[in-house]
Amino acid sequence: MKKLLLQLFAITFLFSCAEKKEKIIISKEATLQEYKTDSTNIKHFFNTALTEGASYEWLRDLTKNVGGRLSGSPEAAKAVLWGEQLMKKVGLDSAWLQPVMVPHWIRGEKEVAYYTVNGTKKNVPICALGSSIATPKSGVTAQVIEVKSIKEAEALGEKLRGKIVFFNRPFDNTLIRTFSAYGGCVGQRVAGARTCGKFGAVGVIVRSMTNGVDDSPHTGVMSYGDIPKKEYIPTAAISSRAANILSDDLKKHPKLSFYFKQSCKNLPDAPSFNVVGQITGTEHPNNIMVVGGHLDSWDLAEGAHDDGTGIVQSLEVAYLFKKNNTKLKNTLRIVFFMDEENRGSGAKKYAELAKLNKENHIAGLESDAGGHTPRGFSINANAKNTKLVKSWKKLLAPYGLHDLTKGGSGADVGKLKGEFVTLAGYRPDSQRYFDYHHSENDTFDKVNKRELELGSASMASLMYLMDKYLETPTPIKK
Amino acid sequence: MKKLLLQLFAITFLFSCAEKKEKIIISKEATLQEYKTDSTNIKHFFNTALTEGASYEWLRDLTKNVGGRLSGSPEAAKAVLWGEQLMKKVGLDSAWLQPVMVPHWIRGEKEVAYYTVNGTKKNVPICALGSSIATPKSGVTAQVIEVKSIKEAEALGEKLRGKIVFFNRPFDNTLIRTFSAYGGCVGQRVAGARTCGKFGAVGVIVRSMTNGVDDSPHTGVMSYGDIPKKEYIPTAAISSRAANILSDDLKKHPKLSFYFKQSCKNLPDAPSFNVVGQITGTEHPNNIMVVGGHLDSWDLAEGAHDDGTGIVQSLEVAYLFKKNNTKLKNTLRIVFFMDEENRGSGAKKYAELAKLNKENHIAGLESDAGGHTPRGFSINANAKNTKLVKSWKKLLAPYGLHDLTKGGSGADVGKLKGEFVTLAGYRPDSQRYFDYHHSENDTFDKVNKRELELGSASMASLMYLMDKYLETPTPIKK
Repeated sequence: MKKLLLQLFAITFLFSCAEKKEKIIISKEATLQEYKTDSTNIKHFFNTALTEGASYEWLRDLTKNVGGRLSGSPEAAKAVLWGEQLMKKVGLDSAWLQPVMVPHWIRGEKEVAYYTVNGTKKNVPICALGSSIATPKSGVTAQVIEVKSIKEAEALGEKLRGKIVFFNRPFDNTLIRTFSAYGGCVGQRVAGARTCGKFGAVGVIVRSMTNGVDDSPHTGVMSYGDIPKKEYIPTAAISSRAANILSDDLKKHPKLSFYFKQSCKNLPDAPSFNVVGQITGTEHPNNIMVVGGHLDSWDLAEGAHDDGTGIVQSLEVAYLFKKNNTKLKNTLRIVFFMDEENRGSGAKKYAELAKLNKENHIAGLESDAGGHTPRGFSINANAKNTKLVKSWKKLLAPYGLHDLTKGGSGADVGKLKGEFVTLAGYRPDSQRYFDYHHSENDTFDKVNKRELELGSASMASLMYLMDKYLETPTPIKK
Repeated sequence: MKKLLLQLFAITFLFSCAEKKEKIIISKEATLQEYKTDSTNIKHFFNTALTEGASYEWLRDLTKNVGGRLSGSPEAAKAVLWGEQLMKKVGLDSAWLQPVMVPHWIRGEKEVAYYTVNGTKKNVPICALGSSIATPKSGVTAQVIEVKSIKEAEALGEKLRGKIVFFNRPFDNTLIRTFSAYGGCVGQRVAGARTCGKFGAVGVIVRSMTNGVDDSPHTGVMSYGDIPKKEYIPTAAISSRAANILSDDLKKHPKLSFYFKQSCKNLPDAPSFNVVGQITGTEHPNNIMVVGGHLDSWDLAEGAHDDGTGIVQSLEVAYLFKKNNTKLKNTLRIVFFMDEENRGSGAKKYAELAKLNKENHIAGLESDAGGHTPRGFSINANAKNTKLVKSWKKLLAPYGLHDLTKGGSGADVGKLKGEFVTLAGYRPDSQRYFDYHHSENDTFDKVNKRELELGSASMASLMYLMDKYLETPTPIKK
């Protein structure tokens, strides 16, 4: 009876798919039996993750015993050893370190900021942005000009001279995907200082990149681009609540004087590593499918959702295949990329070596959007393979994976982009992500065990399907 | 250009719908313009919720200033006044209290439980189950028998005499929807005591209803059914971690003696109220669409996810319509049901009065599954209206509402079931829900502002569509 029901379901499935404009590409190969097999295997990945999953305890270990791990830091070095050791423990066929020189920025002493209105001193939660220079030792004091965009700052031009420029464009909270809101604001953080430095501003403070109103400054990378060193000015993030209060105070006291002090420093590049491991493919060992996240994190917390979850989920993909005795045709490579947060040097190095060694990468999957409940994958592939991935929706939707849409994969595996490489980004729910992102709140307790494990199983399911259905090893002719 | 794109999109939408087996029922009435209108209005509900939403602060007030509000308690009485006042503040056309007699059970002193193995005393986190009787004043001590089901306990029969029966069936964590796992276990909690009482057991302890392993006992209602009073025995929940430890200890020490003490009490039924308010319909004021959640909660925490979120989301549906100047044809009635947790007396009273007063309820929507990120609605309606609701998927999916499936609505609005009543249950993501459910962890800080607001807007969108497209007031002929 159960079998009959399954067959009926499979028939209905193929029938209803056949009616759609986007025909299921697998149908020419995938018999009902294959659909059944895929469905069963995927169920096994989820069952194993949810009952014997290891990622949650790995994450506890990484966040609590290694902690925040900014590229170039002793903690990042510790994380590298942690990663290599864990890959070996999981029983990958091989695991190795891939040397790479990475940025080495240090925060220095805890930053200080305040201003005084009507005789009341208001302390401002502040943190230096990654790559920023320090203020003079005694700090910097200046009048504040509030702007909402790079364009507005550019237009003010010489009026910025001697001022601290306050970028205060908030997230557009009507955007359902919070990453879109981030994308609409992060330019202020990255390019604020270089824009204002050339007009003689003395500092830049930026509203923290978050949806909500909280008391934590959210850090993140900035870049001076190619402006001359003499135009470098210090830049920092202030909490979103402080930004609101400062903005209100500026309306009443437009001449108020703002003080901040930071002692951060850019040191020479430091040696570090990508951590790489693999399970060699049984049929096409030279075809490589990468699954990865980034091992570095910001220093203010534990790097739990960014990107500890991506690290442990990536390794759990291999763990789930081993536990289920799943044999892959192609080589599955797990990569813990170093330095996603600053210059992307780990990803660049990985892609550079792949090219140099003439490695044939056929697929890549990145988890760097937090460890929340699964929503789907974004697909960066040629038209044929995009269609192919979308055709797996019926297999993936029972696990909450409804969103299979064209889009970017991620900053790390994205470097492997090529006409015949099928890239994807894991897309969990994004509502809570920027509550934690780059702030002191990105800690282990914010990660839910089941949500994390559902993510690992989602990723394993996608890789299983890619391994089975991507046309390889011959590149697909257009 | 934008208009052209929109039209093209709408054409594509209708075209692709036409290809599907489940034809879009609205297509006969809904012109492209109507689809565009619906899409725009729904976007407005979400925009308003995410930028001017009030539910989060209402919830803060309810959880922090009223707190846990078990039916019959002073806090529940306070919640009733809070609710009525808030409905008036939001500007409903009318708001009133609907008297109902409710169970009045009190927990008494903090419960105590322990046992001793190898000379080590192990304290067990424990809490009495709602409706349970107390132990004798000095507590109860007895040997423990572990079982995994009511059936297993029944089979042991007379062997239970003089024993404390320990129900220890854990959640099936492979079930993706955690409510299914709850459904598979909760029978132990509800019927454990009445099953064992008739065989002369002296107490029942139950593993807490949760997916994870934690240190908090999760309470919930139990029922003695129709067994004679002399067979009533005290029953309590112990934390899932304690359940694991006790189970291990029992393997080594099968004769171990367990002690627990509780002083809870069933008092006579107390007077209370459903809080009801409405916006009168412009065309069919006698057609009523109910949106609601339950105002009572357990006493161990603040009743945030269960069901403070359902309360504030229900009222926010009305708030969003008012803010957007949305005129509904039918009457929108917001109901804060009293006593969902114990006997469902508020819902029964509401349905009873609706019948008595010959009110024509055409629709009901309940939010009582937590305030997490939206996933969809379950639909309890006749075939035609189930199809109709499913046909709105394209309008709802952009907000994460992919799951429109046949299923129950909820314990409260479910009482309004009838051939021509379209009922629905709001279904947010369920992964985290049983981490908090009925335990000390169900507090305001577990609720995410955006997730809560997305829920309100999801519910408003469904009610807007129901108001527009449900065939009324004449019941649909079969």
